[in-house]
Amino acid sequence: MYLKAKPLFSEAKRPMVFLNKEDAEELGVRPLDRIQLSYKKNRIVAIINTTEKFVSAGEIGLYSDVENELQTREGSLIKTEPVDPPESIAFIKKKLSGNNLASAELKKIIEDVVENRLSEIEITAFVIGLYHHGLSVQEAAYLSRAMAQTGKMITTWKKPIYDKHSIGGVPGDKTSMLLVPVVAAAGLTIPKTSSRAITAPAGTADRMECLCPVSLDINEIKRVIEKTNGCLVWGGALDLAPADDIFIEIEYPLSIDPLLLPSVMSKKKAIGANYLVIDIPTGKGVKVKTIAEAQELGSKFIHLGKKLGISVECVSTLGDQPVGYGIGPALEAREVLKTLLEGRGPADLIDKVSNLASVLFDFAGFKDGKQKALDIIKSGRAGKKLTEIIEAQGGNPKIKAEGIPIGPESVEIKSRKSGQVLWINNRVITQTAREAGAPKDKEAGILLHKKTNDNVKKGETLFEIYAKKKHKLKRALKFLRTQDVMKIGKPHEMVLTEIPKEEEKEEFFILER
Amino acid sequence: MYLKAKPLFSEAKRPMVFLNKEDAEELGVRPLDRIQLSYKKNRIVAIINTTEKFVSAGEIGLYSDVENELQTREGSLIKTEPVDPPESIAFIKKKLSGNNLASAELKKIIEDVVENRLSEIEITAFVIGLYHHGLSVQEAAYLSRAMAQTGKMITTWKKPIYDKHSIGGVPGDKTSMLLVPVVAAAGLTIPKTSSRAITAPAGTADRMECLCPVSLDINEIKRVIEKTNGCLVWGGALDLAPADDIFIEIEYPLSIDPLLLPSVMSKKKAIGANYLVIDIPTGKGVKVKTIAEAQELGSKFIHLGKKLGISVECVSTLGDQPVGYGIGPALEAREVLKTLLEGRGPADLIDKVSNLASVLFDFAGFKDGKQKALDIIKSGRAGKKLTEIIEAQGGNPKIKAEGIPIGPESVEIKSRKSGQVLWINNRVITQTAREAGAPKDKEAGILLHKKTNDNVKKGETLFEIYAKKKHKLKRALKFLRTQDVMKIGKPHEMVLTEIPKEEEKEEFFILER
Repeated sequence: MYLKAKPLFSEAKRPMVFLNKEDAEELGVRPLDRIQLSYKKNRIVAIINTTEKFVSAGEIGLYSDVENELQTREGSLIKTEPVDPPESIAFIKKKLSGNNLASAELKKIIEDVVENRLSEIEITAFVIGLYHHGLSVQEAAYLSRAMAQTGKMITTWKKPIYDKHSIGGVPGDKTSMLLVPVVAAAGLTIPKTSSRAITAPAGTADRMECLCPVSLDINEIKRVIEKTNGCLVWGGALDLAPADDIFIEIEYPLSIDPLLLPSVMSKKKAIGANYLVIDIPTGKGVKVKTIAEAQELGSKFIHLGKKLGISVECVSTLGDQPVGYGIGPALEAREVLKTLLEGRGPADLIDKVSNLASVLFDFAGFKDGKQKALDIIKSGRAGKKLTEIIEAQGGNPKIKAEGIPIGPESVEIKSRKSGQVLWINNRVITQTAREAGAPKDKEAGILLHKKTNDNVKKGETLFEIYAKKKHKLKRALKFLRTQDVMKIGKPHEMVLTEIPKEEEKEEFFILER
Repeated sequence: MYLKAKPLFSEAKRPMVFLNKEDAEELGVRPLDRIQLSYKKNRIVAIINTTEKFVSAGEIGLYSDVENELQTREGSLIKTEPVDPPESIAFIKKKLSGNNLASAELKKIIEDVVENRLSEIEITAFVIGLYHHGLSVQEAAYLSRAMAQTGKMITTWKKPIYDKHSIGGVPGDKTSMLLVPVVAAAGLTIPKTSSRAITAPAGTADRMECLCPVSLDINEIKRVIEKTNGCLVWGGALDLAPADDIFIEIEYPLSIDPLLLPSVMSKKKAIGANYLVIDIPTGKGVKVKTIAEAQELGSKFIHLGKKLGISVECVSTLGDQPVGYGIGPALEAREVLKTLLEGRGPADLIDKVSNLASVLFDFAGFKDGKQKALDIIKSGRAGKKLTEIIEAQGGNPKIKAEGIPIGPESVEIKSRKSGQVLWINNRVITQTAREAGAPKDKEAGILLHKKTNDNVKKGETLFEIYAKKKHKLKRALKFLRTQDVMKIGKPHEMVLTEIPKEEEKEEFFILER
């Protein structure tokens, strides 16, 4: 059937077209069936949507992307033929029915996801199929490989490659920004790509961007690595395992995360990692609640790493409260810079960094890894390395902590009573910082003055909230009125909190990987 | 945040808006989060989509429906505020995790589905949750009620109401068109609403439309019922259980049908049925393959009926081959008309109709139900009743079978050998009729000359294919070249068919309910 092109003047994620219901019936197709469009020498397979109104019989509604691909104009006569749906739909159904999938089947699904050949309904079915039936380690390996191979693979830089990943969920966790300089200063290659925050107040890319550019291309990254052994860049534009971003769009609204393992490992495979340390923050208010869960997850990562040729070690770390004192891109960048330049800083932060570094140092055959890391920090060599990396990425190597703007709006929250900080609620910290504008407003966030087990006097400042814009500061304060950030009490007090009568509606889902 | 309206000049199924990524970050929202839009006194909650390109920062892209609701024009300043997602998403997640849902939870989900408050991803998650974890009969009852109550409920016509439903899947199954006149002629009220074909060559509404209008509104239907006790109308425009259509859009591309029971029963509840006979065609090439499966499904319907206050009986009928000889709207309408006007016709068709009618007659307390039905057919009273219904619905009561147009293109398929028809493949019959143009082209379809167990001589006609358009006849013939419609052989031949070396790719999914 020939139909006249009608431009829709807007875009869609996938190649979708609108047919009038009458033409759809004539072609014997239904919504979500596939149709091949031909115009001159150009061809494209699109997903069908039908309408009774805004596309008339004899017309076909085209989004800009399809229009560009076919090079049609308004009124161009397009040949349309129904075609079979992508083969991968059969494999998705197979997974939905609880069967394990073979390498070729998973690869076909991932290819079709990346090429936008599958509809949202079909990808959702795949994600939920994985959520229900789980993935075998073998399937996770196939998926990781397929997700890596359908994106860019980096193979050219100096081997071996060391890397670090965190399962995330702890606000203020700026570990990577210290770990990379420490490891690079020891002579190991660590090309760290990071994400921006999705549900957190800051991602490593957001923090590092307060010091220097992070949106580097592969060649620029290579030059940085050659100069300094390390980098701290945003991975989002490097086309590493692009299927992951599409899966995240499905997982986020459903608050499920069945692709955690392949998501992490596909990116590591894509950058060619040989040795990997994975930080699994464990505790209340993060994804992994108990050490047993951390061990289970960790052993899966190790097992999956073996199948992918990556040596993996996992460390379960205390995740009950923020790491260090700053939360939010600029406040965290300040804390990192100050710590490394002065060679000393928050005890928890330094302990975490040196422990994770020691795992990579063990891989490298270095002795006394933890002490070596501490020495590198204390001696200022890590600070020097960070400065080198900042300069190599195009930033100002003379930048000082105080030079990084925060605020200008701020408010101090003081304690109404004396006692000890019994707990800090990660979820409330995260949400308050986000209400205040983080991570979009780099200047926004929270600066803790007290942490768990600290003594507090009535009237003393517990924390400060910073915001770039007044209305966001107000928004954060409004949010705080209904929430408990910290519990101040006596050490012997046994009541953690009073359970509210109504179940709390808002669910907290950590998508950071 | 205030944003300028940018019309998108097209429509979407749900209230969706496009934000520039920058504004989305500023608002702290992600794709599929919800946003409330206010303009003057008008408010609407929409689902967020983000773009980097075609909607600039400071703008908000509006589909026509949202634009109309808010009464904005290009450039109108719209107030935007993030709001919590619908509560029903939490219930969908609960089902995804394998928990049973309560009445209020299912009702909320169905309300949000009907009001278009849920995204395709979220509805898909619900449908797959039901597919995986199944529905308890109690849940099916809650769902049926909620689906009925969120649409129109008909309560005003003469009680009690008798009704019939078929699980479908057998091509040429024109039973309802004979059953309704038979039951109505016996003085019982049977307001039959039917669907158009989704994956079949004809639905009852498609068939009946060859004889008279079927798109009647409720008041017109009431007048028909008052005059004749029965009707055969299209249910699609009556707003009965509208959630079902939305679920079908998800189920169809995934070839799953977890909502079969509530789908059927919600519509019966909506029209106020008291007594219901359900036909479960059973055999090769239909949805239900064995009598055991039919019994299981039937007992679920009976159990569900009890919870809904509907007396249900189920009948498992032979589904291995088409019912009667005609397949396709016009060919079937001809067969129905001829059979009832002459008082005799295909033995299988008459046996099926009279058996199903006898179930309803039993409910009514009539004795010898089957014989009574046969008498009503034989005496011509059913034919007279059908003529009355045709007239009451606005058709020509003098219509004759030969007056219903078929073709004009046609071809006869002859047997290459002598023997007996060992089997007929429903799936191939269905697909051939659809390739020839059915149900869209009412004149298209298949007329069988031979059925299973009939003797055939070499060169005798096995069946004819009819089409309105030559290219569709060609398409049907092309399809047939790769398929076996019938197997002609000797009765003692044990080989049903040779299994092709490659697995057949195309899956056959029957969505008719």
